[in-house]
Amino acid sequence: MINVGIIGASGYTGAELARLLCCHPEANISVATSRQYEGRPLSEVFPSLRKKADIICENLTPDELAARADLFFTAVPHKTAMDLVPSLLAHDKKVIDLSADFRIRDVSVYEKWYQPHSSPEFLREAVYGLPELYRSTIKSARLIANPGCYPTSIILGLAPLLKADGIDPNTIIADSKSGTSGAGRGAQTGTLFCEVHDGFRPYKVGRAHRHTPEIEQELSLLAGTDAVISFTPHLLPISRGILSTIYATLRTKLNQEQIISMYREFYQDEFFVRVLDEDCFPATNSVRGSNFCDISVKVDPATNRVIVMSAIDNVVKGASGQAVQNMNIMCGFDETSGLDAAPFFP
Amino acid sequence: MINVGIIGASGYTGAELARLLCCHPEANISVATSRQYEGRPLSEVFPSLRKKADIICENLTPDELAARADLFFTAVPHKTAMDLVPSLLAHDKKVIDLSADFRIRDVSVYEKWYQPHSSPEFLREAVYGLPELYRSTIKSARLIANPGCYPTSIILGLAPLLKADGIDPNTIIADSKSGTSGAGRGAQTGTLFCEVHDGFRPYKVGRAHRHTPEIEQELSLLAGTDAVISFTPHLLPISRGILSTIYATLRTKLNQEQIISMYREFYQDEFFVRVLDEDCFPATNSVRGSNFCDISVKVDPATNRVIVMSAIDNVVKGASGQAVQNMNIMCGFDETSGLDAAPFFP
Amino acid sequence: MINVGIIGASGYTGAELARLLCCHPEANISVATSRQYEGRPLSEVFPSLRKKADIICENLTPDELAARADLFFTAVPHKTAMDLVPSLLAHDKKVIDLSADFRIRDVSVYEKWYQPHSSPEFLREAVYGLPELYRSTIKSARLIANPGCYPTSIILGLAPLLKADGIDPNTIIADSKSGTSGAGRGAQTGTLFCEVHDGFRPYKVGRAHRHTPEIEQELSLLAGTDAVISFTPHLLPISRGILSTIYATLRTKLNQEQIISMYREFYQDEFFVRVLDEDCFPATNSVRGSNFCDISVKVDPATNRVIVMSAIDNVVKGASGQAVQNMNIMCGFDETSGLDAAPFFP
Amino acid sequence: MINVGIIGASGYTGAELARLLCCHPEANISVATSRQYEGRPLSEVFPSLRKKADIICENLTPDELAARADLFFTAVPHKTAMDLVPSLLAHDKKVIDLSADFRIRDVSVYEKWYQPHSSPEFLREAVYGLPELYRSTIKSARLIANPGCYPTSIILGLAPLLKADGIDPNTIIADSKSGTSGAGRGAQTGTLFCEVHDGFRPYKVGRAHRHTPEIEQELSLLAGTDAVISFTPHLLPISRGILSTIYATLRTKLNQEQIISMYREFYQDEFFVRVLDEDCFPATNSVRGSNFCDISVKVDPATNRVIVMSAIDNVVKGASGQAVQNMNIMCGFDETSGLDAAPFFP
Repeated sequence: MINVGIIGASGYTGAELARLLCCHPEANISVATSRQYEGRPLSEVFPSLRKKADIICENLTPDELAARADLFFTAVPHKTAMDLVPSLLAHDKKVIDLSADFRIRDVSVYEKWYQPHSSPEFLREAVYGLPELYRSTIKSARLIANPGCYPTSIILGLAPLLKADGIDPNTIIADSKSGTSGAGRGAQTGTLFCEVHDGFRPYKVGRAHRHTPEIEQELSLLAGTDAVISFTPHLLPISRGILSTIYATLRTKLNQEQIISMYREFYQDEFFVRVLDEDCFPATNSVRGSNFCDISVKVDPATNRVIVMSAIDNVVKGASGQAVQNMNIMCGFDETSGLDAAPFFP
Repeated sequence: MINVGIIGASGYTGAELARLLCCHPEANISVATSRQYEGRPLSEVFPSLRKKADIICENLTPDELAARADLFFTAVPHKTAMDLVPSLLAHDKKVIDLSADFRIRDVSVYEKWYQPHSSPEFLREAVYGLPELYRSTIKSARLIANPGCYPTSIILGLAPLLKADGIDPNTIIADSKSGTSGAGRGAQTGTLFCEVHDGFRPYKVGRAHRHTPEIEQELSLLAGTDAVISFTPHLLPISRGILSTIYATLRTKLNQEQIISMYREFYQDEFFVRVLDEDCFPATNSVRGSNFCDISVKVDPATNRVIVMSAIDNVVKGASGQAVQNMNIMCGFDETSGLDAAPFFP
Repeated sequence: MINVGIIGASGYTGAELARLLCCHPEANISVATSRQYEGRPLSEVFPSLRKKADIICENLTPDELAARADLFFTAVPHKTAMDLVPSLLAHDKKVIDLSADFRIRDVSVYEKWYQPHSSPEFLREAVYGLPELYRSTIKSARLIANPGCYPTSIILGLAPLLKADGIDPNTIIADSKSGTSGAGRGAQTGTLFCEVHDGFRPYKVGRAHRHTPEIEQELSLLAGTDAVISFTPHLLPISRGILSTIYATLRTKLNQEQIISMYREFYQDEFFVRVLDEDCFPATNSVRGSNFCDISVKVDPATNRVIVMSAIDNVVKGASGQAVQNMNIMCGFDETSGLDAAPFFP
Repeated sequence: MINVGIIGASGYTGAELARLLCCHPEANISVATSRQYEGRPLSEVFPSLRKKADIICENLTPDELAARADLFFTAVPHKTAMDLVPSLLAHDKKVIDLSADFRIRDVSVYEKWYQPHSSPEFLREAVYGLPELYRSTIKSARLIANPGCYPTSIILGLAPLLKADGIDPNTIIADSKSGTSGAGRGAQTGTLFCEVHDGFRPYKVGRAHRHTPEIEQELSLLAGTDAVISFTPHLLPISRGILSTIYATLRTKLNQEQIISMYREFYQDEFFVRVLDEDCFPATNSVRGSNFCDISVKVDPATNRVIVMSAIDNVVKGASGQAVQNMNIMCGFDETSGLDAAPFFP
């Protein structure tokens, strides 16, 4: 049993960490922080957590924090994270950072898309926390850059084909749709119920979304060459879930059966990836609440394109669940500990 | 570890039993039946269950069934249940029946609201499976009549006040609102997405809903006198959740504080009932996916009425979760086994 | 053709006024104000209005305003309205005020529920703008207090029975459910999509909602005696719509048929009230987008109670549509001008 | 004023025809048919239409029908339409067919995707009812093949670029998302509220959807060469609305400004097409309930692709509204008659 801290507990990823960790057999939430709700029980902020996570929110300095847990989840905005993480590491704590601050390996790329980086020396050490690709380095890491939600769905969707050199990386188009929890819990007109409900819209179209360089970094590493992609995010009137529909031109004449086999083999030891049968397509509400990533592939011989569809719960496999999976790996726990609940349907 | 069977696995309560039981530490789903999906994996019917409940649906006779498990959940329509349950009992199996067939103690009342009863001899033996009221008899029962969803929310909401003779039982008005999963998975125009979405409506108004006699039976037992109530069900554009807003005239001048104390005391040992602080009101999405019942009470001195609000997940505490809770009690398991996940929010 | 001004055009009621008025055959929107969006086209704030209401939002003094239109809709918060309305009246303009500032006849009641009133001298002059009850005085009024959304649904629901002395006014319980647009367009955590979606909850329970005195004022006038009621608002995960389920004890033995006849007669000349057949119940999505109020009554002889159900679109009959109806009456237009579109389903 | 008939009035497109036509200044609904609801008022099937379209549903032979109106909307399934339309034409009636039966010019293509065609002789005469492309021939047509919903959004989205030879037609990928009303009002498990709500999924992926040949036919005509495209439909948890996100590789170096100008010019006389400013993206709830098609274009120089986004209400511009627009053109009415209501938001 280890003690874990949730830094930034009053956002949706913080709440989800609490939801998952309050039932984890090996972890105890020993500290939770929130500037806004300091002194109030987390279960007052999220009444769903009553009797499950009644811990009081605190507002602590990094030094005070370090004394309170063995491992920390930093569920704070980018920029805040890069200022906080080094002090936690300096106290020999393990850190799983859910912000974007340590995901981009090239500091100049980071600074182009975000802002100046205050602790670039950790970019090299940080491990990109996608267990299906980086499990062995995660095992011994002390700083995990937990992947973004859109990137998780797209990278897992394309990894087998890119690794096998099956598609032209410059033909990749990722049309992604996300639930509204991805926009966070800040009060904004654009995410009010009446603005989102019964509607659907794209946003940040045309290399405007900050997940673009993260996605391209990982796809390029898989392909062994630079991948420049089109990525279009859309806002769905659902709470949770991302579905990415990904198009790419096949390099070689691979048929439907061969590609499904390739995916099944690639993910054969991965509990959290479910490769579907032909003509079964993923749905966000089939993975809701779980750490699963459902993937389906469809070859269209008429256009020589493959269409990959990938669904995750953006708050679980796209954020807090993947963070717990990383913790499990780092701490030698069973990788599915605390993550074995079935998806939530209907 | 016991073997359990889910009879009627392809409906929403069947799917929810599978969702809860597939992670239960003491129970193994050894058989699941569905006439419609015979021979197909349950995870094909509900893709959410892939890798979690891949059991093949079967279509078996009662005798064949009996050989396959120690305890059965009958998640079939009323009428079907009354014909099946006796043969399972005859094989010395425990049965938790999720239909209405064994809930009404007075066969003439049952037959007035439903149809002739084919096995009235079991009405006396059946235990009404509301653990908060009948735990000790559930322990030794072999046939549980698992309560209806609306009745669970209303009975738990009123039990402390009725037991204490605090309200006039003939002034009770229960205005209840339910999510659409309560209408089942049968294909009907009235529950199509476009008919329900972005809408709200009452139905079966004025002593027309079959849960009325079940509610009145239990409220009368609590009050020690006949209670005739107004009960109005409404259909909410949500998947899961019931919220009942219940009005009654106070018998004695009880104030807000006294009534909250009365509720806190009544439910002090009940893990699954959460009595909220004054002016915190229950919400269906604070109990979603969990076996919790959240209750809030508010006294209005101007009208001398008390308003009780009670929220449950109709598929969990209102059906499958309560059934698992009953199984836990009958089998001597920890009462929260398989039911300890935190509610699902957002 | 008259010129009309929308003061406070960037909220949901302002947008709805623009939606209805941009197609009105007798009215031209000559001015629209918004402090926040000054200088920007209204169709930038609400892209739905492109090509329909491209007017530029302005920020004007009352004197400047008065020169720009013949009649004004004040869709601003209470308190702001009471400071603005007198200057518009001083310029001999007609005003339809959508705030609560002129709805309560007794200034002490107003001040108990709101705050000190800066222009109480207009309370006597203001006409409560419910055409079905006050049409003849509306005709010659220059200041209309446009009714609240909940009050509209409840008062129209009870008027025939109260007028006929058919129910005991002290037994009235109004259990009301509203769509989220009623909470306005201000950015608040509580009305974010993820907080409201797939959920349902009561709020301001127990004489805590400010519509209570407005409802009681009008019900008392109808009954000819003081009515003290229970009113419980709830928040629905829909954009538009209010459904009130209202319970009261019958004074005399009126049967189902008699009460339906009473309602049909009472509303026989009212285009916007639709009295439904027995066992047809109103639904918010059957009135959505329209100025209709659908009403159904059900007698329960077992409890001697009548249950009245009343549905409106809170933004139309509960606000902007009723305001346009009042304008039509005040200006001698056909009462259904600009309001004759059929409800919007599905 | 003409008399019009709605054949197949009890489906969603039938209901929408009734909603639009009941307020049309030049058209009178003189007959409405429904086998299922014969003898019952249409307003009983759709309570929203009470007092607006109380016409009784009938079940008539083609000959009986022909005597009852001047122009017919056939809102029946494909196959049914092809058997009915010829007899209406034989009686010299105008027909606007909302099925797919007369949309495909090449009978062999039709028969490959649907079934044998019983009246192929009318394929040549039928005019594809997309006014923005075929207005002049619609004027004098007697049989209109009203376009499919997905095709409308995609063809309007690409027409300016294809006409100008700006993109390579073999690089077109249309990722489309539709509201659930597109699936019709038939009772099916897959479109139940609980299956669709809070979820999102693709379906008929990889040249499997029957709108594919219709889209390719029209895009090929615009391009002047065969276009083979990728088209992926998805199901949105909303009632109405289609948003298509369309990707294509630019043929020449056109910049953002040039392409917006090209679109503005192409659609300058089209009331129902709104070309948005740069970085304003369409949303389904900005066109809901209206006949508008909102289009936005975004050039991505890094990939040399253009991204076109196009939003319509699938039941209006994607079906019944476009049908009314076609009627207006055929009958010499103002093209916006009955279609001038502003979109419905929130």
